[in-house]
Amino acid sequence: MPPSSIITLTTDFGVSDHFVGTMKGVILSINPAARIIDISHQVNSHDVFDAAFTLFQAYRYFPPDTIHMAVVDPGVGTARRPVIARSGRYTFVAPDNGVLSLIYEEEESIEVREITASHYFLSPMSHTFHGRDVFSPVAAWLSKGVEVAKFGDPVTDFVRFVSPKPKPAGDQRFQGVVLKVDKFGNLITNFSARQFPALLQENLPAFRLSIGQHHIEKLSVSFADGQPGELLAMVGSSGFVEICANRGSAAKLLQANRGAEAILTLGTG
Amino acid sequence: MPPSSIITLTTDFGVSDHFVGTMKGVILSINPAARIIDISHQVNSHDVFDAAFTLFQAYRYFPPDTIHMAVVDPGVGTARRPVIARSGRYTFVAPDNGVLSLIYEEEESIEVREITASHYFLSPMSHTFHGRDVFSPVAAWLSKGVEVAKFGDPVTDFVRFVSPKPKPAGDQRFQGVVLKVDKFGNLITNFSARQFPALLQENLPAFRLSIGQHHIEKLSVSFADGQPGELLAMVGSSGFVEICANRGSAAKLLQANRGAEAILTLGTG
Amino acid sequence: MPPSSIITLTTDFGVSDHFVGTMKGVILSINPAARIIDISHQVNSHDVFDAAFTLFQAYRYFPPDTIHMAVVDPGVGTARRPVIARSGRYTFVAPDNGVLSLIYEEEESIEVREITASHYFLSPMSHTFHGRDVFSPVAAWLSKGVEVAKFGDPVTDFVRFVSPKPKPAGDQRFQGVVLKVDKFGNLITNFSARQFPALLQENLPAFRLSIGQHHIEKLSVSFADGQPGELLAMVGSSGFVEICANRGSAAKLLQANRGAEAILTLGTG
Repeated sequence: MPPSSIITLTTDFGVSDHFVGTMKGVILSINPAARIIDISHQVNSHDVFDAAFTLFQAYRYFPPDTIHMAVVDPGVGTARRPVIARSGRYTFVAPDNGVLSLIYEEEESIEVREITASHYFLSPMSHTFHGRDVFSPVAAWLSKGVEVAKFGDPVTDFVRFVSPKPKPAGDQRFQGVVLKVDKFGNLITNFSARQFPALLQENLPAFRLSIGQHHIEKLSVSFADGQPGELLAMVGSSGFVEICANRGSAAKLLQANRGAEAILTLGTG
Repeated sequence: MPPSSIITLTTDFGVSDHFVGTMKGVILSINPAARIIDISHQVNSHDVFDAAFTLFQAYRYFPPDTIHMAVVDPGVGTARRPVIARSGRYTFVAPDNGVLSLIYEEEESIEVREITASHYFLSPMSHTFHGRDVFSPVAAWLSKGVEVAKFGDPVTDFVRFVSPKPKPAGDQRFQGVVLKVDKFGNLITNFSARQFPALLQENLPAFRLSIGQHHIEKLSVSFADGQPGELLAMVGSSGFVEICANRGSAAKLLQANRGAEAILTLGTG
Repeated sequence: MPPSSIITLTTDFGVSDHFVGTMKGVILSINPAARIIDISHQVNSHDVFDAAFTLFQAYRYFPPDTIHMAVVDPGVGTARRPVIARSGRYTFVAPDNGVLSLIYEEEESIEVREITASHYFLSPMSHTFHGRDVFSPVAAWLSKGVEVAKFGDPVTDFVRFVSPKPKPAGDQRFQGVVLKVDKFGNLITNFSARQFPALLQENLPAFRLSIGQHHIEKLSVSFADGQPGELLAMVGSSGFVEICANRGSAAKLLQANRGAEAILTLGTG
């Protein structure tokens, strides 16, 4: 593996406290050549799925050999393990709490190792800030070219959850869920164009997306297909059907949030 | 043009979602040597003027040849064009929706080109996230030294709005407007020291700034000219008259926001 | 002094406005090789202690010769001086308003100089944004290797406050205070493991932390020692006793904020 200088950070540490700056200091103390890119530090606090989804949306846009570090870690200080996961393209550093689940689903031939080589950690090591004391130094040493095998042995019983998939709910009907509300108030559902390729078809024979008492009868192509404030459904930039409002917040209009149920009716011609 | 490694970002994408991190991944995948600097990602959602003004306040402080990318793009996915604008000092990449209007006013001999060379875009290209699929790759290729002419032909019918200028409103009176409320609650008006050089004069013969039922009879030099919480007027760091409260928020005190009317009475001696 | 390329920023400028981006432009215009790391820009507005504490939590994790710039500056435009402080390890650039007080307490043999060499400042210099016009250019020139002596002469009457220390309050009782509420709602008190080494002892003979009407009778080791939502006390990652709630906000549960009184009862065996 050629050393990579790019390390990305996905955390729930926020940007008000010293946390993120401190982690960058640790990384740069070990590898002054590291290039550290923030994906997000505003993941919902303690929300492993939200971190997993945010990382999932971003990670493949980075150069090969990028090291992706994800630290949403409600179990910090317990026996939960720190892990390194390697696919052919990327290296991931995270607590073993499921935050890499969507990566495990997506990446081929991934190898997961428990990080046991504690001489790479900061000392003394706190019980509450492993982002600083464990994950940052491990990512930094990886970025300097230390081989993954040096950090610990492979494990097969790593924690993974299955991402929520739409369920059949009658003739051409599927029951899904809102995975995420983005900054604009767009509701990202789990109906993917990969699972439902007809969504990318022109002239869909039938389309209906229902959320609460609202029904959207058309799949739009861009925000501007609707009047300002009108609700639209479209395949969003991450490949999932999103419910949007032209220049407005669908989440506010619908009083809907993550976890809201959505029903897709889809004819395939 | 020597290649520049600095790319700045001004967007309304926020810092909670993956958007900004993803754009940086795209840029670094094309130009690993790029240096990406955030100006702001907290521009008001869909607010082209707010982005224009934020970029205007910052852009001239960057080194020559910096590439400034501004993506507040409510028309994404419609026929609105992506453009590159070149002045003698800087290159700008943005949707052609007026977000560069204040640059067009300020910079001399600017050339605007429509970006049509879609082979520089990511493929497949989404209809909703051109920050990722269009503007980031174009900025990255520009930063590698690809000539602007390669991206498309000059256009002259680019979109520009005229920034709101104070209007005469009687003897030595001018009617202006609040352009922006900053993080501290300072109200930035459109009365500029450039248009009213007397504002920089010592011992102004007459000064009065009125907003709502409040009148400020003196032009101060620093925040500390007032008691804590007292309203002050001064020429701010961007060259516009600002209404401030020493260690407090003028916006809260006045219940005023962007768009509020302000009246300046100014004797010129 | 070998030139350092790392400059950190701690300010109350927020991330919505152009302020931080503009400062980075100024720095890069002077030293294109500078590496600029944000510690926080969300320090409470005008709150010198909050900035001092944030910097204190982060600064020692950076490589030697890092230049730490801290700009929370309610006195900008007044006679308050800009200073450079040098310890054996780091250089600090800040207004002389006490924001470096915790550094003065912590670092050995620190030398403080008033910055008087105004030819290093931007010109024209504003009265309201010395982050851009004074501190950024000084930090940038320092990072290029300009000797500190070039910026001005040593001073001994620099401003420093004494950080609030716990006071004896009866037999084995100490009265302390909440210094900071972090993003997770953890309440960081001023009871430090350095002042009370018994806190790091296993099997404390007696421990009680009281805040308002609440009493915590045990010193925990990690968040997971409690049921979700249960209040815990533990020595946090910055070495101070923190009041936390497992996967919840102690600040919300206790309706407590910075400045709240806390009482520690501590047997030392």
